[in-house]
Amino acid sequence: MISVDEARDRILAALRPLPAETVGLSAGWNRVTAAPVAARLTQPPADVSAMDGYALRAADGGLGATLRVIGAAPAGHPFGGRVGAGETVRLFTGSVVPEGADAILLQEDATRDGDRVSVNEAVVAGRHIRRAGQDFSAGDIVVPAGRRLTARDIGLAAAANHPWLVVHRRARIAILATGDEISLPGEPIPPGGIVSSNSHALAALVRALGGEPVVLPVARDDEATIAATADQIHGMDMLVTTGGASVGDHDLVIKALRARGMTLDFWQIAMRPGKPLLFGQLGATPVLGLPGNPVSALVCAILFLLPAMARLGGLPAAAPPSMPAILGAALKANDHRADHLRATVSSDSQGRLVATPFPVQDSAMLRRLALADALILRAPHAPALPEGAEIRVIRLDSLGL
Amino acid sequence: MISVDEARDRILAALRPLPAETVGLSAGWNRVTAAPVAARLTQPPADVSAMDGYALRAADGGLGATLRVIGAAPAGHPFGGRVGAGETVRLFTGSVVPEGADAILLQEDATRDGDRVSVNEAVVAGRHIRRAGQDFSAGDIVVPAGRRLTARDIGLAAAANHPWLVVHRRARIAILATGDEISLPGEPIPPGGIVSSNSHALAALVRALGGEPVVLPVARDDEATIAATADQIHGMDMLVTTGGASVGDHDLVIKALRARGMTLDFWQIAMRPGKPLLFGQLGATPVLGLPGNPVSALVCAILFLLPAMARLGGLPAAAPPSMPAILGAALKANDHRADHLRATVSSDSQGRLVATPFPVQDSAMLRRLALADALILRAPHAPALPEGAEIRVIRLDSLGL
Repeated sequence: MISVDEARDRILAALRPLPAETVGLSAGWNRVTAAPVAARLTQPPADVSAMDGYALRAADGGLGATLRVIGAAPAGHPFGGRVGAGETVRLFTGSVVPEGADAILLQEDATRDGDRVSVNEAVVAGRHIRRAGQDFSAGDIVVPAGRRLTARDIGLAAAANHPWLVVHRRARIAILATGDEISLPGEPIPPGGIVSSNSHALAALVRALGGEPVVLPVARDDEATIAATADQIHGMDMLVTTGGASVGDHDLVIKALRARGMTLDFWQIAMRPGKPLLFGQLGATPVLGLPGNPVSALVCAILFLLPAMARLGGLPAAAPPSMPAILGAALKANDHRADHLRATVSSDSQGRLVATPFPVQDSAMLRRLALADALILRAPHAPALPEGAEIRVIRLDSLGL
Repeated sequence: MISVDEARDRILAALRPLPAETVGLSAGWNRVTAAPVAARLTQPPADVSAMDGYALRAADGGLGATLRVIGAAPAGHPFGGRVGAGETVRLFTGSVVPEGADAILLQEDATRDGDRVSVNEAVVAGRHIRRAGQDFSAGDIVVPAGRRLTARDIGLAAAANHPWLVVHRRARIAILATGDEISLPGEPIPPGGIVSSNSHALAALVRALGGEPVVLPVARDDEATIAATADQIHGMDMLVTTGGASVGDHDLVIKALRARGMTLDFWQIAMRPGKPLLFGQLGATPVLGLPGNPVSALVCAILFLLPAMARLGGLPAAAPPSMPAILGAALKANDHRADHLRATVSSDSQGRLVATPFPVQDSAMLRRLALADALILRAPHAPALPEGAEIRVIRLDSLGL
């Protein structure tokens, strides 16, 4: 058996980021940049007023002074002239400070009477002026390559004058569930059969990870049927299978795809839930074989498909994001298999994340997995831990997983 | 001026959850259930084996016993007969335990020789058998109404035999940017103009919140043009405007939409960044008017549009999710306006979230907002705080905001 980390490292080593495509700015949210976004202009482009008020020469803005209003510069309509001695120009937040002026008299510190303005609070040179380039200057990298774009990044790229963005292509992930015993929801269920949940749970997971799922028809436990899928994955960036990969009498996926030329890593992984994991290469397409058990399939997808899709999508090759937490209930020592305990989370009075494992961790309990907020990571042979011990968790609740 | 909480309460009080629609299971991810999902079957449907092995009567499974294999029950192919004295049936994980059997002999504890199996480790009645209904029983509510569906929920709904889901409709949000000074990215920029970032940042935010943005053409600072948008919002669940809502000379949005019959709440909110916020009702459509400043617009959208869309989408009426954190740098006392400090976050050695505000918080710095991981919440008149103090933050990094 190999470790979770080794299995993940071997998967990640076999994958390369997908090539780039150009998308419209409005389609860029949640995509990963394949090139840095450099500002195409300077923001603000000139010195601008940070407040509503009047532009003037600081020397003219002593308490009690009176100035002559020679114009106005609403945002978008800069004043073309120059502010001379004793003169002032009406400004608004964002208005370009006109030539000659070096101070702002705030609206609330001014009394206007026709074309005259008197100063009720002495101005300070430069105050309330935002300097050209305060936010960014032309050529500045405002969004680096390899960043998953937030709504704020989209705003920043827009402000930097980019109507288009260069992003990594979305990973197209073909999903193949196998098994004589499974039916899709709403379809007739044979005696002893179960409703297949893996395909659509994994498809949703692929969406949550920013990819495009392609759900293949369920393949019966028949070598020829499974082998035929090998002809249907052209253009897919990965084939994910579930079931048929146990050490029992029914490891048909391996047999069938091997017969089609799949090179194969097949591992027993020292982990729970899970254990058998298949990774291989079928022509140009990587193949990830997950367990058939729905809880094991989803946990293995979080541990292996999430980093694989991140890597394909242009993000760093890394373990799924985990964070420190405090254990909410004592744990027994772990055996030789890395464990991933389904847990709820809360915050304690000191703002620390507290993760409390469900008392029963049976891998057949999908409902409990759905109720979990996090997976508590337990290393092989981890010692018994008291309540309050420091642990690490993978949060599930905020990722839509 | 009113408080942030009062403004949000008044907005939420005016909104109702959108009606339901039926979507395919595969389209359900990240939608919010409008009805509970009740299991349509029992899982497992019968007692099943938790392991690969042999089904037998516990009385026959003493150490050294030998049994006759009378059949096999691969998953999906239940054994039709009954296990009698001295008999056994080959089983696999998930196989239905045949009638008559009440114990499982693990594969690794068995030695098979033709149709004979000998027992190397005495069995225990009931062990390694998953009871019918262990995961859920027909009629159990497996997903409540009002839940944003995760990938795991999709799997659970599938396992509960639901090909369709009843969810709240997505909110369609019309977005109107106004201003003579703004151009869309890549378009000619007039002298003194800026590139409009609000429309597309807000559109991305609407997507991040699970809604459908409709970006209206930019409206110039012209009453007739703005008023004409009133005719273009039929079927929209909300109109969000940016700019034109200041107390300056350019509150055209209010004038124009009022002339079209908009009822109006217009507030100065005691907050920073932000301050002027418009909320009203234009026919059947709620109107939310955000500031024109991009940082203020985005922060106000997080504070007011996020809860509004949650409410429209069927989630509870509530403030944006915030969490406790530790302050990474001392803060001065706050003035009378609630503040929302842009901050980075990290974890300390005890697993506590640490939020460190940027030293400069100018509301014109969009780049810094994009770099922020969180907003630190500062109440009006909050006292000075030392590094290490307990605070609350709204996290931005995990929401795609």
